[in-house]
Amino acid sequence: MNEVPSLQQLLKQLQQVPYLASKNIYRVAAHFLTMDQAKLNQFCAALREAKERVIPCATCAAWVEKGRPCLYCESTRRNQSVVCVVETWQELIVIERSGGYQGAYHVLGGVISPLDGIGPENLTIQLLLERVSHGTVEELILATNQTPEGEATSAYIARLLKDKPIKISCLARGMPVGSHLEYMDRLTVYKALAERRPF
Amino acid sequence: MNEVPSLQQLLKQLQQVPYLASKNIYRVAAHFLTMDQAKLNQFCAALREAKERVIPCATCAAWVEKGRPCLYCESTRRNQSVVCVVETWQELIVIERSGGYQGAYHVLGGVISPLDGIGPENLTIQLLLERVSHGTVEELILATNQTPEGEATSAYIARLLKDKPIKISCLARGMPVGSHLEYMDRLTVYKALAERRPF
Repeated sequence: MNEVPSLQQLLKQLQQVPYLASKNIYRVAAHFLTMDQAKLNQFCAALREAKERVIPCATCAAWVEKGRPCLYCESTRRNQSVVCVVETWQELIVIERSGGYQGAYHVLGGVISPLDGIGPENLTIQLLLERVSHGTVEELILATNQTPEGEATSAYIARLLKDKPIKISCLARGMPVGSHLEYMDRLTVYKALAERRPF
Repeated sequence: MNEVPSLQQLLKQLQQVPYLASKNIYRVAAHFLTMDQAKLNQFCAALREAKERVIPCATCAAWVEKGRPCLYCESTRRNQSVVCVVETWQELIVIERSGGYQGAYHVLGGVISPLDGIGPENLTIQLLLERVSHGTVEELILATNQTPEGEATSAYIARLLKDKPIKISCLARGMPVGSHLEYMDRLTVYKALAERRPF
């Protein structure tokens, strides 16, 4: 491959793209090499433009187009007194898709993970505290993932806000819709029993 | 998503990349948006440069850097009298990796597939015929995939060359290394029996 340095360089770049298995990058490279020049320019332009024009919202840190209002925290059709705290924008999209939420969001940008060198100061926790201190937020839904890091991050945020007059909740834990008891893991069944609700 | 058109545009572009499942493109988009500007520029530059500088070899149609010799058909350490015909460059890489081949290659650029509108004239078959007509090729290994289209393409090439004084071979069919008879499909066992060899 040393005799084709430009291709080698491209393969190296593609290796860093998440969700591209290294055995597939040859095919992806071939896809770009056989593409029309115009289409390749379009692809690069879309990348650069998104990088330039899409920025985190100054209030909730969700992606927003420069100069346009935030879809979530500047919408009057949304209940701005409820804020759902998620790890990343991808998780925001999933909650939006469920169709069950009409409040605002706050994107942390990750989770506290000392092993990866990510502390609270690397996340948007300060931004969230400022937002809460304005007094318009009544409820905070901590919707981080149920990983050790996600739970620790939620616990950290809950501790910081424990003296504020706001309600702090988290997502319900229990049986997924359509699931069979027989195939469910022990901990989920335990939680579903412990947090059972009136029928 | 209409309020974030640049991001929408990027997602649309990413949807066209092979091997990126549509449920993963959000994460890939976030990867690019959170990347350093310098790294993003590097990525785009690598794409453009590869597109500009990597071209198909005029002899074997494998990718080659503009102005540099072809790794396969201009190498004196390779046996230029044997040519292995593969569908795409990705398959060439796989054969190279096996370490069992020291001859030259010919990349067809696909297979004959009338349903997809791909006829012999869309492949590099003419280039292969010219190469054979020079008289330096002694053996042609037809290594297309064992799909209906791949086998038809091999048959087509073999028919075109049947009057030429060259040997035409194809890859051995039989039991994969490390396989169990018990789990092998009927056709493979049939072929392995029919094409059995002296121990």
